[in-house]
Amino acid sequence: MPDKRPIITLTTDFGEADYLVAAIKGVIYSINQSVEIVDITHQIPAHDIYEAAFTLMCSAGEFPRNTIHLVCVDPGVGSTRRPIMVMADEHQFVGPDNGVFSYVYQRQEVHRIVHLTEQHYFRLPLSGTFHARDIFAPTAGYLSKLIEWRMLGEEIADPVRFNTPTPTIVSGRQIRGSVIHIDRFGNIVTNITREELPDERVQLGARVRIGKHATERVLTHYAEAAGDELFAYFGSAGFLELAVNRQPAARIVEARRGLEVEVICG
Amino acid sequence: MPDKRPIITLTTDFGEADYLVAAIKGVIYSINQSVEIVDITHQIPAHDIYEAAFTLMCSAGEFPRNTIHLVCVDPGVGSTRRPIMVMADEHQFVGPDNGVFSYVYQRQEVHRIVHLTEQHYFRLPLSGTFHARDIFAPTAGYLSKLIEWRMLGEEIADPVRFNTPTPTIVSGRQIRGSVIHIDRFGNIVTNITREELPDERVQLGARVRIGKHATERVLTHYAEAAGDELFAYFGSAGFLELAVNRQPAARIVEARRGLEVEVICG
Amino acid sequence: MPDKRPIITLTTDFGEADYLVAAIKGVIYSINQSVEIVDITHQIPAHDIYEAAFTLMCSAGEFPRNTIHLVCVDPGVGSTRRPIMVMADEHQFVGPDNGVFSYVYQRQEVHRIVHLTEQHYFRLPLSGTFHARDIFAPTAGYLSKLIEWRMLGEEIADPVRFNTPTPTIVSGRQIRGSVIHIDRFGNIVTNITREELPDERVQLGARVRIGKHATERVLTHYAEAAGDELFAYFGSAGFLELAVNRQPAARIVEARRGLEVEVICG
Repeated sequence: MPDKRPIITLTTDFGEADYLVAAIKGVIYSINQSVEIVDITHQIPAHDIYEAAFTLMCSAGEFPRNTIHLVCVDPGVGSTRRPIMVMADEHQFVGPDNGVFSYVYQRQEVHRIVHLTEQHYFRLPLSGTFHARDIFAPTAGYLSKLIEWRMLGEEIADPVRFNTPTPTIVSGRQIRGSVIHIDRFGNIVTNITREELPDERVQLGARVRIGKHATERVLTHYAEAAGDELFAYFGSAGFLELAVNRQPAARIVEARRGLEVEVICG
Repeated sequence: MPDKRPIITLTTDFGEADYLVAAIKGVIYSINQSVEIVDITHQIPAHDIYEAAFTLMCSAGEFPRNTIHLVCVDPGVGSTRRPIMVMADEHQFVGPDNGVFSYVYQRQEVHRIVHLTEQHYFRLPLSGTFHARDIFAPTAGYLSKLIEWRMLGEEIADPVRFNTPTPTIVSGRQIRGSVIHIDRFGNIVTNITREELPDERVQLGARVRIGKHATERVLTHYAEAAGDELFAYFGSAGFLELAVNRQPAARIVEARRGLEVEVICG
Repeated sequence: MPDKRPIITLTTDFGEADYLVAAIKGVIYSINQSVEIVDITHQIPAHDIYEAAFTLMCSAGEFPRNTIHLVCVDPGVGSTRRPIMVMADEHQFVGPDNGVFSYVYQRQEVHRIVHLTEQHYFRLPLSGTFHARDIFAPTAGYLSKLIEWRMLGEEIADPVRFNTPTPTIVSGRQIRGSVIHIDRFGNIVTNITREELPDERVQLGARVRIGKHATERVLTHYAEAAGDELFAYFGSAGFLELAVNRQPAARIVEARRGLEVEVICG
């Protein structure tokens, strides 16, 4: 049986058409040729740190212990925003200090956040526009070789974080949430989880209102739905989602991120 | 020389923008960190099991013995459609029982088809919408660790299959086939092979009619063709294809999958 | 610590939707299952050897010594254009002899160029349309197993190369260059480097004119720029670039590859 190789994942807004992602991989392999590099996605919309944070939240947790997650959606590259590394209970994260790790701070046990300052471990000369290649990639490479964190920079206590939108329980019968993601099939992901809307509630009947539209039922899988029915279900990331079977619900109900969603329990 | 690592390929309609593919990979690596995961494609048009079956037919066979092919184009996810595993002579296949393995059944020696029923090997709690992560990925992971098939479920004899379209030999001089794929360059792939149209026939002269257009010649490579000429050739997957050099033939002749094609031999 | 595995990179215009890339990978793994395959990109515009050459120039150099770079943007596939292998100081390159390696010839120490003629090492039967699978992939696979070059073909001295566009120093104060690439963010990459425009010059003030537009400043990173300002900076590939912060500069100034750019020093 071959040895386990350390895993480094990549989440960026670089697309796959350019040389950028390949340059990052080349730098990592040049430091540690025995690493496994896994693309989470490079199709985060340009500069969209919220989408990057969401994507990371839904996928990072599936990876084995000690995986290193490199994230680079970095509109402030080269400015005073800090390059950081986040050491959490199971995984490590490397990227810009711009809020992209907000869900990590919220949901994981974080042991230490390190401001990456040691130029010795950068790819030099340091460019002002491509820290993914010049700082984050080498940091991930050295982490995969188990470098001691003290070598890389200084601990900080004030990372940038954005408010991760939380649903409001308006009354015993009413929950107000919002759209946090539209997926490839046009399904609408809200920020409402089973914590706000437990199964007992669902079984008593629950309707979800979005804009001028509303669902009648919370189902368990797509094929249960009638032809053009807009329906709700708990999706694979644990959030309440809205869909139309084999059709892009987001286009039909004109949903976009941030739109309000309301659950009325029966 | 490093050891051989088992290979798992992925063919889905998930796209690369979302967290879905990464979640699958994370689950596989969590079961077997020594596996090599290869993306065949994640750009199958949403719910298009015919395209998935075609893509798999043209690429799976190139992989080494014992490769495991995970396929997930799965409009019926969560319904009564069965999750299955197909054990063929050289490779194993994991995915939904919805016809996506029709070409495998037609072209390979299949030893056994197993309905995956053992929840012990699923990622739990089982979602109703993402069996690729919760059933197919763990199954592929355990297969790569050489688990015994009896642990995973029960043998079945009645898998779903669609009719793989076959050309008709109308007369000694006439073959009727159909378009089965349009590739990225706009080349038109038909279901006619050298079996129906052997080289001796081609050398006597053969014309191919599609809609209101027709080719005059069967060539061996693109650069042989005159400027705007529509021409035929046997493509790399073994099928008769129609193309215009450096132009999208499918758009020019308004071809789509299912369109009839006729070969008239000289 | 696991062993180092040889790296093979892929740069093509095949896209990721079709079976083509997977077929190449399958062939490579069938020859050497211990190799690491890295996608540089498969989104080179169809038949665009200039873009492929540029992408290779910006990324290949980041990879470790002995990496093998397979490139296939190959409009002349099947014609008399030769399949070749280029042995340079640090890396090896495999692909069509159509100019795609022009920057390699210009910037690297090339020891030997080999015309690949030995059918014994091809995937047979050789198709007329898919040499990436039938010639380049097996060649890369055997190279990763350290095959002696003499087994594969014959040395040649006259590879095809295109003129890599070079800036002109018109006078002590004026440099004339051109656009060589537009990246995913709409940033405009020119062929002007620090060699033509050294930092001393930049510090004295330099304006860049493109079409009817002009920059006032050369900055070091994006966030320095004012709202809608068109500005210049040396990008991560070492070339002078033009951008507007978080907007697609190329669309705003209507830039395309080949457009003239002029630098006026203060």
